[in-house]
Parts: sequence; structure tokens; C-alpha cells
Amino acid sequence: MLFGYDYCMKFNKALKNISVYEAGKPIELVIKKYGIKSKDIIKLASNENPYKTNKKVQKAIKDSAINAYRYPDDSMSELKRLLAKKHNVAQENIIIGAGSDQIIFFAINAKCKEGSNILISKTTFAMYEIYAKQIGCNVIKTPSNEHKLDEFYEIYKKNLNTKNKIDIIFLCLPNNPLGECVGAKEVASFLDKIDDDTLVVLDLAYNDYATFKDAKKQIEPKKIIKKYNNVLSLNTFSKSYALGGMRVGYGISTKEIISSLYKIRPPFNITTLSLSSAICALKDKKFVQKSISKNFQQMKKYEKFANDNDISFINSYTNFIVFIFDSKNYKTQNIATFICQELLKKGIIIRDISYYKPNAIRITIGTKKQNKIVLKELKTLISTLS
Amino acid sequence: MLFGYDYCMKFNKALKNISVYEAGKPIELVIKKYGIKSKDIIKLASNENPYKTNKKVQKAIKDSAINAYRYPDDSMSELKRLLAKKHNVAQENIIIGAGSDQIIFFAINAKCKEGSNILISKTTFAMYEIYAKQIGCNVIKTPSNEHKLDEFYEIYKKNLNTKNKIDIIFLCLPNNPLGECVGAKEVASFLDKIDDDTLVVLDLAYNDYATFKDAKKQIEPKKIIKKYNNVLSLNTFSKSYALGGMRVGYGISTKEIISSLYKIRPPFNITTLSLSSAICALKDKKFVQKSISKNFQQMKKYEKFANDNDISFINSYTNFIVFIFDSKNYKTQNIATFICQELLKKGIIIRDISYYKPNAIRITIGTKKQNKIVLKELKTLISTLS
Repeated sequence: MLFGYDYCMKFNKALKNISVYEAGKPIELVIKKYGIKSKDIIKLASNENPYKTNKKVQKAIKDSAINAYRYPDDSMSELKRLLAKKHNVAQENIIIGAGSDQIIFFAINAKCKEGSNILISKTTFAMYEIYAKQIGCNVIKTPSNEHKLDEFYEIYKKNLNTKNKIDIIFLCLPNNPLGECVGAKEVASFLDKIDDDTLVVLDLAYNDYATFKDAKKQIEPKKIIKKYNNVLSLNTFSKSYALGGMRVGYGISTKEIISSLYKIRPPFNITTLSLSSAICALKDKKFVQKSISKNFQQMKKYEKFANDNDISFINSYTNFIVFIFDSKNYKTQNIATFICQELLKKGIIIRDISYYKPNAIRITIGTKKQNKIVLKELKTLISTLS
Repeated sequence: MLFGYDYCMKFNKALKNISVYEAGKPIELVIKKYGIKSKDIIKLASNENPYKTNKKVQKAIKDSAINAYRYPDDSMSELKRLLAKKHNVAQENIIIGAGSDQIIFFAINAKCKEGSNILISKTTFAMYEIYAKQIGCNVIKTPSNEHKLDEFYEIYKKNLNTKNKIDIIFLCLPNNPLGECVGAKEVASFLDKIDDDTLVVLDLAYNDYATFKDAKKQIEPKKIIKKYNNVLSLNTFSKSYALGGMRVGYGISTKEIISSLYKIRPPFNITTLSLSSAICALKDKKFVQKSISKNFQQMKKYEKFANDNDISFINSYTNFIVFIFDSKNYKTQNIATFICQELLKKGIIIRDISYYKPNAIRITIGTKKQNKIVLKELKTLISTLS
């Protein structure tokens, strides 16, 4: 160094405004803090598939373990072939990412730069904002927490012929962390009104759950790319495919958009074992359908519990549910934070979403056994609070 | 869409100048093209550890397979604890990446923006340039292919008080794809002359190989961060630890630099199984030392072969060797490309580096058995060419 030890490395100004994504509390921390055994911990905070890794996929992982030394096949041709078949599109319409998160990153970094504008709903998946702010984009939010497409359109239109033109609109269908879902027809009417130079990203991470509950929520990437040249659909292996830990997602769009995103993709962005897992998982449709079907059977228990105990909830098209407590009924302020902390002491990890509403929590729908315990503990807890 | 089907989505201008990283040919392509059985293919193109995945690590992967559904522990505390112990630094001095590649990306995106300047040697690891160009940086190269620190310094100094000030200098120690290595003392003298606002990245991906061959090449991150506040050291699990497919690397630097890089890190950037593998691999020093020791025993065979056959080679401090053929001795032009293509037909994959010199190839040092076959085939091939 030249000028002594005073610290004077300057980084990009945009970094100052970055908030870091807060992941659900890892099991390791709960074990350490409350001395609860690993097997007794119920983690329903990150919308993981509670039925755990598909046994066939576990076998595929074990069979591939010897290949961990070898770089992954960077062409990802087998996985792309299977995905192309599933969605009835060409392989050139597909890009694979380390989770659909990474495709969000590709989209923002291909289309935006410092001062670009993205439009999202007030309460939605945190990564849209985080990646946008990393490069100094402006993040514009609709007034409502839930997706209201007329609010999206109004903001879009107001800025259309100004220097604040919106570069990317993110629609989360259904919306994480709230669970509501705009219908496919409504989405199509919205897309019809958007110009070709505004990229619309449809985040379909939970869309297979929504489709199961109501076919009118189904977004089909094949139909989208046939009609629109400015839309990117995102999908993931982290939820119904039960591979959250392997970090595999994908984007489907026109060949032109996909080839632009490819320029941002780092080589080997998926591990060798992630490729093997995703390829195997794609071949077992039954596991996915069973996971989704059980999810909605179990969700009924949460809905009944809410109704029985005077708790509001958002009608959910996902594998999680949001409870909103009526503060008039309880002695404590910050009910959400209090409940999450108390459940944590019992080894139950759920998500405090008091940033949305001070009385709101989000619970991933677990297995029958897990849900029974969670609802029992929750019942005890709110009795002491009332 | 609003304006009909004419394609008019505009992406960032910087994308136009991006060349995509060309990975070594995957085994799958060779199987398909030449009908060679998977087990007969010898892949020595990507500097993977030829002794394959450590058996203890394979067991750790199998034991963790059931957890593939679960997001990784994003605090990565156990891996960081072990790395902090190994390098005798604090956990706050460490950041984990999806390969050291991703830390290169973090550094460039934290420190640079469009129009920033990075300085690299003429022939070095491709990702420095690729990531820099993704965001529109200027990439300045030394005149020499090999690392000449006086050339680095001259260019650095010439631009110091101008608008073209260098933002990041990348030193690859030893240098991939050539194999030469600047000594630690020389590096220290260089660092002494660099100002605090220029980030110097020391890429130590193969430094444990270099240290084994010559202790004077050893760079110790602990000593570096004690003395310099502008240096980031990179390391990887892809080479001596034999985990190329799991994508785990790490950076060591001052707490200030690490915390700035953290702002660019996407959550869950390492898979659940990558964490388990790296944690297990770190605990088995013997495997690493054995891999390195065998590497240099086997390298002697390549050096002898080169000497016996009038082929030049670069004295290598890594797990690969560069052969440079004397074009006067052969009938064919583009000897490197020709040799690589002919070996491919025999199921042997090595790297054509004719972009460096038209007669140069790079071979990863394989196992005893692999090297015997490769050198035999190479001998036959050059006999027919002479």
C-alpha cells in the first residue's frame, strides 16, 4: 500500500443502499440457542417441500457422488431437453439458473443499469428489489401490498414517455410472501397493453400449486412466448420438486431474450449434483402432484384453525399461508414477532412478516404431523395472550 | 405487446462485447460424436483432480442426500469456522462463493462500473475479462503473456492520476492457463507500491500446488491482510480438494472489503450438498497432499516426453502443463488444433490454447494410467506429423 494504513478503498455508491436478504433461521442456530434436538425441530419458514427429497432423487445424488470432482456439463443439454419437452418449447427458449433467483439477476443485469426503473408490488419477493438496488436501479412499488394490475398499469403508463420509463415489471404469480394470485386472463390483458421494450417477468415459482387449486391461474410459458416478445417466465425446482438446497431454476422466453441473458450467465452456474437431481426429479411427476395435493389438504387445517380462532388469513395459492391477528383480541403489541419468538423456543421456525403488517406471520404448510404440533402450540400461545 | 411483433427489446450495450467462456468439452459430447464408451474417455481439459472425489466426501454427500430439499445454511458458519482455523484469520475475513469465479464477480461488481479499468496479463484466466466486460469495464493487458510485474506496474503508474486509473489488478499465482508463477517476495514488493484505492486480487486457485514445488511461491492470506488493506486473496475447492463440480471457492481480505463484497452476494449461493462436501473435504488434509504430490511425480513424465521429442514446455507450478510445438518440425499448420482434434477421436480431451500460441496445447496432469495412454497416443500422432 502507498498511503499508510488509513482505510480508503472506495466501492460503488449503490452498495450503500443495499439491504441484505434475510433467510429463514437455519436449524443450526435453533439447535445452538435452545438446545433442541435436530429431529425435533419443525422448520416451516422457507416454503421448502415438507415431504423432503424424493427418494428417487436421493438415489440419483448417491449415484453421482463420485462425480463431484468433475465440472458440470455446461451445455446442460439433458436437463434442457427434458424441460423443452415438458413445456413444449425449443431448448433455445430456456436458460438454467442457480435457482430462479439467478434468472432474476440475469434479467436485471442484462436490461438495467444505474438509474433504470423496475416496478414491483409493495409486498413481494425480496430479491427483485435487492438485485435492482445492487446496480443502483430505482425500485417503484404499487400502493397496494397485493398485486393490483391496474395499479401496475397506471404507474407504467404515467412513466412511459418520460426519462423514468419502467424497464422491468415483476409479477409474482402467485405472490410470495402473501399467497394471493392474479388470474391468467387478467395477466394476458395486462401484457397486451405493455410496449415491446419493457420486459415483463412472470415469476411462476408457485404457479403449479395455484394451477392445482384453480386452473384459471395457470400461466403457460409456451403460449406466452408465442404471443409476446417481451415476457420472461421463471420457474424453480425449489418448491414442488423439493430441491431448494440444490439451487436450480429456469427461465423461458423468446430466443432473443434468452440469448441476451446467456451473456450474463457465469459458466458452471449449476453444480454437477444439481444437474443430476433436477434431471431425475423431472422424470417423477407423481411426487410433485402428490406434494401439491397433500399441501392443499393440509392447508384446510390452517384455514379452519384461523376461522375457529378469529384470525384472518389470505386465501393462498401456494404452499404457505399468512395469518393476520386482530390486535384488539390480544394483550401484546407486536404479536407477530412475539409469536415467532415463542414458537422458536419450542423448536418451531415460522416467518415473521411484520414488515407487511405488524400482526402477520407466514407459515409453510408442513406434513400432517408437523401441522398438528404447530397448531397445538399456536393454540396454547394465543390462549395465554388473549 | 403494444407495437406489433417487430423485435425491439433493447438490452445494455455492454452485452454486445461479451464473449462467452468456452468450457472444456464435456464427456457427453465425445460419447455422442465418436461413440466412445464413457469409461474409456480421458478428460484432461479442465484441470480437475484426476484422483476423483475423496471417498470420505462421497460418503458425506450420500449422508446429506436427504437434505437436498432444504435450503443451505446461509450463514455457512461451520465452513467459515473451519476456513478461519485453516488460515488463522477471523470468520469476518472470509466470503464463500460458487467457485472462486463468483468472488471475482463480486469484486468487479462491488468496485467497478461501466468505464472502470481492470489490469490483467495478456494470457490469464478468462473470467477476469468476461465479468469485467459484462458491465462495460475496459480491460487493459500487459504486453507479455506471462506475468511480468514490472509491466503491470508501468501500466498502473502511467494511469494513476488520470481518468483511466486502474480499479482492479488481477494476479494469477500461479497463472492459468500457462502455469508460471511469480514468487511471493516479488508480489510483496509490487503490493508495497500500489495505492489503497486500487484493489489487487491474488488468485491462488493453484497456489498450494506451487507451494509444494517451491515454498517461495507461497502466498499466505493472513500475512497479506495484516500488511495490506487493498488485497483480496482467492482460493478454491475445485482443484486439490477435487470438488470442481460442487462450485465452492472463497475470498480472504480485510473485514471492510469482505463486508462490501457481501452486499453483492446472492443468498444461498452454495448448495446444501456443496457445503457438506467442502466441510468434509477440509478435514482430510492427506487427500490433498497426496493429490499434489502425485501430480508432480506424474508431471515429470510429461517433461521427459517433451525433452525427448523436441517440444518446449512451460515450467509448471500447477496441475497442468503447456506444450509448445516447434512448427519447423511438423508438416501441418495449426498443430495444436490438429492434435486436439485427433486425440478427441481417441477419447482424449485436452485443451487447445492456440489463442496463446498457434502451436500450444494444455494438458491436465492425469493419473499414471491416463498419462501413459495420452503420451503413447501423442507419440504416435507426432510421428505421423513429422
